[in-house]
Amino acid sequence: MTSTILPGKARGASNVLEAARARLDRLAKPPGSLGRLEDLAARLCAIQGVLNPQTRPRRLVLFAGDHGVVAEGVSAWPSAVTGVMVDCIVRGKAASSALAAATDTELSLIDVGTQAPSLTPRPGYEARKIASGTRNLAHEPALSVPELDQALALGAEAAQRAQADGMRMVATGEMGIGNTTPASCLAMLLAGIPVDQAVGRGAGADATLDRKYQVVQHAVERARPLLEHSPRAAIAGVAGFEIGAMAGFYAECARLSLPVVVDGVIATASALVAETLYPGASRVMIAAHQGAEPAHAPMLLKLGLTPLLSDWSLRLGEGTGALLAFPLLDAAAAIITRMATLDELQIAPSESAPS
Amino acid sequence: MTSTILPGKARGASNVLEAARARLDRLAKPPGSLGRLEDLAARLCAIQGVLNPQTRPRRLVLFAGDHGVVAEGVSAWPSAVTGVMVDCIVRGKAASSALAAATDTELSLIDVGTQAPSLTPRPGYEARKIASGTRNLAHEPALSVPELDQALALGAEAAQRAQADGMRMVATGEMGIGNTTPASCLAMLLAGIPVDQAVGRGAGADATLDRKYQVVQHAVERARPLLEHSPRAAIAGVAGFEIGAMAGFYAECARLSLPVVVDGVIATASALVAETLYPGASRVMIAAHQGAEPAHAPMLLKLGLTPLLSDWSLRLGEGTGALLAFPLLDAAAAIITRMATLDELQIAPSESAPS
Repeated sequence: MTSTILPGKARGASNVLEAARARLDRLAKPPGSLGRLEDLAARLCAIQGVLNPQTRPRRLVLFAGDHGVVAEGVSAWPSAVTGVMVDCIVRGKAASSALAAATDTELSLIDVGTQAPSLTPRPGYEARKIASGTRNLAHEPALSVPELDQALALGAEAAQRAQADGMRMVATGEMGIGNTTPASCLAMLLAGIPVDQAVGRGAGADATLDRKYQVVQHAVERARPLLEHSPRAAIAGVAGFEIGAMAGFYAECARLSLPVVVDGVIATASALVAETLYPGASRVMIAAHQGAEPAHAPMLLKLGLTPLLSDWSLRLGEGTGALLAFPLLDAAAAIITRMATLDELQIAPSESAPS
Repeated sequence: MTSTILPGKARGASNVLEAARARLDRLAKPPGSLGRLEDLAARLCAIQGVLNPQTRPRRLVLFAGDHGVVAEGVSAWPSAVTGVMVDCIVRGKAASSALAAATDTELSLIDVGTQAPSLTPRPGYEARKIASGTRNLAHEPALSVPELDQALALGAEAAQRAQADGMRMVATGEMGIGNTTPASCLAMLLAGIPVDQAVGRGAGADATLDRKYQVVQHAVERARPLLEHSPRAAIAGVAGFEIGAMAGFYAECARLSLPVVVDGVIATASALVAETLYPGASRVMIAAHQGAEPAHAPMLLKLGLTPLLSDWSLRLGEGTGALLAFPLLDAAAAIITRMATLDELQIAPSESAPS
């Protein structure tokens, strides 16, 4: 990860935003009557730097990794499930596969650190393991700083490839049993969220919550003193390979002015990592939803992002929430690119009515 | 409109609902982890009576009509705009046209009572005017009972045609300058909503709000005594041609077990009319969003519908909110039809973890 990964200047983004808003106000409808769809259209224009934003082709990149902390019993599922689900995703039978197909989205998965044996190479799958799972963050830093940097670089590379392949919009997501624990640590560390809001039951654990609290609290206490002088070291201590890769992905999207949809609580923790290491990266992020984990809403707030879907109680990850957002972005792009203006229709408000 | 329009029995709908929920729980994800997407999938299954719900092809039917009450200055736009917008929609340049294209939805428009001259016949457009606008509900009943019945029948016919043309899912919407005024009346009359919650600024009026309050209050006082013994007469007095047609459309969808997406505040007022005249019609309704008009949320509550999109501040109508819901329904159908089950993957929760 080199310094060229820093988010690029928002070249004239505010001018484009104003021009987009002006055009939206002239469309064949009362100004503002499409509510958030108009905000979203203006946002897309500002990110892409154009008045005819494009949302296709698009790609969801999933990063997979395992977590040593699963040994503490913080998850209802064994680490072996990560590998099984990677296989399921690659074979097109997972939730993300179904939603990618339904939303006309290309899906690729990169194994950046699972414990599972690598699959044979095939389209849409890459084995780029940095290690076979992280160390147990209950007892030692999950990643070393060089490992975090490798993960960030892998993520950045995937974003560059998406751009090179002509993608106009991207999303990233994850598969990693146990990864709500590092996400909770990052929520506390980077957004100052208290432990009782930072820790939830993830995708399955209920009765293990007490242990998860202890583990998270302890790991954050260890990492926090490092934050000011060595944020990379603090983050590495409580992160994961897929979390680092997603952060690198976001940061590179910002540099490339590529709109990127943020998925659930893990993806949002990664977005916080990106914003911490590369301030301004959130400029290109669009939050898909506010999930069931309690840390999600305050992290989105910290990033200044308003989720498109609220109260949907999603807690799967795998980019599923991000995929639900793509058609809403299609709709936003459609209104600004396809609608007639009031001038073209020669409509004006009633003379007798106030403006 | 004959008695055969009564909503059909939900043949085994509760069995299908249970079977759908059981299947959703066995899919390759923690049970319930896709939140409302699972509820939506189960709902679609129950309406269609199958475990592999289909969402394509689909059609949005817009009904257009004008309102005599516009003479009272309740709208910021003159009635002539209805005809201009009908033309804009038919030419594919309106918000609904843009969103229909973006969501792979067929769009058709039926003029059931505008003041504008009919357009020349063309695909996706029909002139079926019952009259040239309603009477002014500030002074007399907007529609006669036979006129309401004609509108209901036209709507039912459009739903039958959608079914005959192979549509698996439908939505309806409206274009009619001034139609938030009858919608406010219906919200008060049929859902018991007080006047200050029932009346909003619609798609443009701000300073005319006081007059709108008076008009609505007066019209509802006139209609209310009729409600118990002649609900049709009460409704006709404060309705509109497009509102009646949408109500007939919903009722027929219920009889045909055809899922129908409910759009904004006008469409929801029509849904209330349908549920009042044909109890149980709401069984096939899916609420797209909760719009900016204050009456919308309490009417949805009265119908027992939870909107898919909240806080989007949509206030255009034209079926635009309903169109945003279609891709979310595609996603719901995709998870239950495309995902592998945990059995197929041989995954079980960790032995060491509590269930």
